Amino acid sequence: MRIAVIGGGAAGLGAAGAAKAVDPSAEVVVYTADTDVAYSPCGIPYVHGREIDSFERLFLATKEQYVNTGIDVRYETTVEAIDPKSRTLRIAGEGEASYDRLIIGAGWNYAKVDVPGADLDGIYEVKYIRAAMDWDQRLDSCKSAVIVEAGLVAMEMVAALLHRGIKVTVVDRAPWPMADVLDPDIVEPVRQAWEDADVDMQWGNWVTAFSGDGSVSRVETEQGAIDTDIVIIGTHKVPNNPLAAAAGLQLGTTGALVVDSRMQTSDPNIYAAGDCTEIPHGVTNIPIQGLTGSHAYSQGKTAGTNAAGGTRHYRPVFVPWGLLAGEWMIGGVSFGETLATALGIEHVVGKAQGITRARYYPGVRPITVKLLAEPGSLRLIGAQMVGGEGIKERADFLAMAVRVGLTIDELATMENVYSPAIGALNEPVSVAAQNLLAGL
Amino acid sequence: MRIAVIGGGAAGLGAAGAAKAVDPSAEVVVYTADTDVAYSPCGIPYVHGREIDSFERLFLATKEQYVNTGIDVRYETTVEAIDPKSRTLRIAGEGEASYDRLIIGAGWNYAKVDVPGADLDGIYEVKYIRAAMDWDQRLDSCKSAVIVEAGLVAMEMVAALLHRGIKVTVVDRAPWPMADVLDPDIVEPVRQAWEDADVDMQWGNWVTAFSGDGSVSRVETEQGAIDTDIVIIGTHKVPNNPLAAAAGLQLGTTGALVVDSRMQTSDPNIYAAGDCTEIPHGVTNIPIQGLTGSHAYSQGKTAGTNAAGGTRHYRPVFVPWGLLAGEWMIGGVSFGETLATALGIEHVVGKAQGITRARYYPGVRPITVKLLAEPGSLRLIGAQMVGGEGIKERADFLAMAVRVGLTIDELATMENVYSPAIGALNEPVSVAAQNLLAGL
Repeated sequence: MRIAVIGGGAAGLGAAGAAKAVDPSAEVVVYTADTDVAYSPCGIPYVHGREIDSFERLFLATKEQYVNTGIDVRYETTVEAIDPKSRTLRIAGEGEASYDRLIIGAGWNYAKVDVPGADLDGIYEVKYIRAAMDWDQRLDSCKSAVIVEAGLVAMEMVAALLHRGIKVTVVDRAPWPMADVLDPDIVEPVRQAWEDADVDMQWGNWVTAFSGDGSVSRVETEQGAIDTDIVIIGTHKVPNNPLAAAAGLQLGTTGALVVDSRMQTSDPNIYAAGDCTEIPHGVTNIPIQGLTGSHAYSQGKTAGTNAAGGTRHYRPVFVPWGLLAGEWMIGGVSFGETLATALGIEHVVGKAQGITRARYYPGVRPITVKLLAEPGSLRLIGAQMVGGEGIKERADFLAMAVRVGLTIDELATMENVYSPAIGALNEPVSVAAQNLLAGL
Repeated sequence: MRIAVIGGGAAGLGAAGAAKAVDPSAEVVVYTADTDVAYSPCGIPYVHGREIDSFERLFLATKEQYVNTGIDVRYETTVEAIDPKSRTLRIAGEGEASYDRLIIGAGWNYAKVDVPGADLDGIYEVKYIRAAMDWDQRLDSCKSAVIVEAGLVAMEMVAALLHRGIKVTVVDRAPWPMADVLDPDIVEPVRQAWEDADVDMQWGNWVTAFSGDGSVSRVETEQGAIDTDIVIIGTHKVPNNPLAAAAGLQLGTTGALVVDSRMQTSDPNIYAAGDCTEIPHGVTNIPIQGLTGSHAYSQGKTAGTNAAGGTRHYRPVFVPWGLLAGEWMIGGVSFGETLATALGIEHVVGKAQGITRARYYPGVRPITVKLLAEPGSLRLIGAQMVGGEGIKERADFLAMAVRVGLTIDELATMENVYSPAIGALNEPVSVAAQNLLAGL
């Protein structure tokens, strides 16, 4: 059996590895337009910020290691078309290649900032490692940067640029950072830290053009022009699906591929995984897109397993997420108040401000937890958090709590570890639940 | 209504505050033999270790603050007897005091090391803050210390003594640290760190006498004598219940007070909370004793609420716990393999070694998670962990998972946050569950 994989990211490589595990005799070929696979693109902002000392450290495996596992990775190779009827791919400069099963892990692109000058040099999309290496050198001589939209990567890049001593301007249509996902009270410590670091935050503003002589030197906006050495695109992710669309595969409301629980697309020989797919949200059943690397990897394993003849199902998602923005970790599960309200989902809210260790223990940090519950049943349906540590672990917990239908009463009476160096007497998740009950 | 409280720890003060909240007109009197209340005894080892710079920082509230809340705290006041029939207490040097409701939060003592010389000077029980201040000065001139039994406080005190440059010897009947609770593979990194720091570990040995001229200078053991400047008692907690026993209150198999879910003792006017009570273990229903400060506080609130005429129930416990032992956090939920085996509880096990952040991110630490499940149903029944960070939050999560009957399949398919600075691609809890399933 010949299994072709489009994309060398977490989805594609997860799929390739799982397919090979199910059917070691399968010929597994991964096509990637990138120069490399098996590196962590999520680490790029932290190399720019000098938290990590070298791009080399982001590589997880060498090309040789993939050869040894029997996965045939074709680098810098672009798939130009998929023909589901004949089960062939058209490869740029090479002609046709057949497949028995195809797995699409084509990933995402930044939403286009479709204004004049968008093709100028000096406009940086943080994504590929070789490009990042070049950009990193360029940052050495940068004095100023404009970030267009304070999306997820932008949250990390602001901190990175500040560490490099670069003056930062943020231009965003929305009224606060990551406004499509985050509640304003949760992101407030980050916004305050940006203000303290003299980040010029232009909320409710948008780019009308980029200008400059070959390389961008000026960003024109609805509210005036900004001189800058560099522009960083921080827009939200959109699925990279022109190939799939041209092949007639069914796309959903988000523009991403519709898949079933086996990650099978509308064509029975084609599977998909990662940011090019949409997955039902566990609470609302609304298909959503643009999840995390661990989702992509797990979906890839599901797609690869099924493509090779095994059986594995992927479940609706509750989307625990988190990131480090300077000194603050932010994160959440499912949705916050802003998004729940926008979706018309009734909810009641409880919030608590706590601390991560005993008040007197070195390294103690504040942490704020907000819980959303369904009125009446008081089942947990969402959460948002900001704090100095312990956000990832709580998000994982609360995602499971939403999945299994835990109620606020359960959380209000939860037991918690108290030990001065590692946890405070009162667990903020529990206090938020107690506050929710007290507020009813 | 006159509510008397015996004990000024987390249980007693939690009870006093809750009683006052339910019935602000109640007269609430707290009797404590200690010189202070509202400090964190759990912080004492870390002041000895110099992680915390002053004992003053351990105080949570001033005596004045308690006066302002209307709680009458009687310091250095010993209750000598309880007469449930007449509802009176006998107070040392003061005579009788009546109560309408009594709450006993009398706490715990270290299990006695009942050998000759046990009353010598120089034998330190880490417990009271004023005594700790004196002992802390004494540690300045100490060159050597013998810790008798590697219980919970001993785990913290070894690190503290090493930070002070004091030569440490541990004498313990058991074959590894905290052997009554911890599995040997989980505690191994701590044991290894102790070995690396030249701690003299005498497992399978026990004290036969303390000797010295007024102050202890030698510990006699079954396997020879040890010269030492100081002895630290690290034995397990036993409930402090001579008063309750003399009053005829029902004690359970652990020697602790039997209470119902309202924390009511066998006498309807007497409630109890904290380390002097025993609480059913949620998995086995066996009454257990010697929980944490957060358990004591929560039980205190339950006892105080009910004593004052409110209604609040306390649930069986799943006991998330954790601590910092030098560079390693250890912790768990319910029980580990050793204890499950000793109790005759059938179980299957899955274990995983993971990392706490992306492999390349600064501060990344190893973490090991072991899960125990009921054969057949595969419901989670216990967990043990050791790692560099994130133990407390995972223990809280897994305690809830045991409480609500989550299965290994749920944990194997859990979603997790992946973001380089705060979490790794693979969550070790999930991988441990996957490994358990793979091993069946």
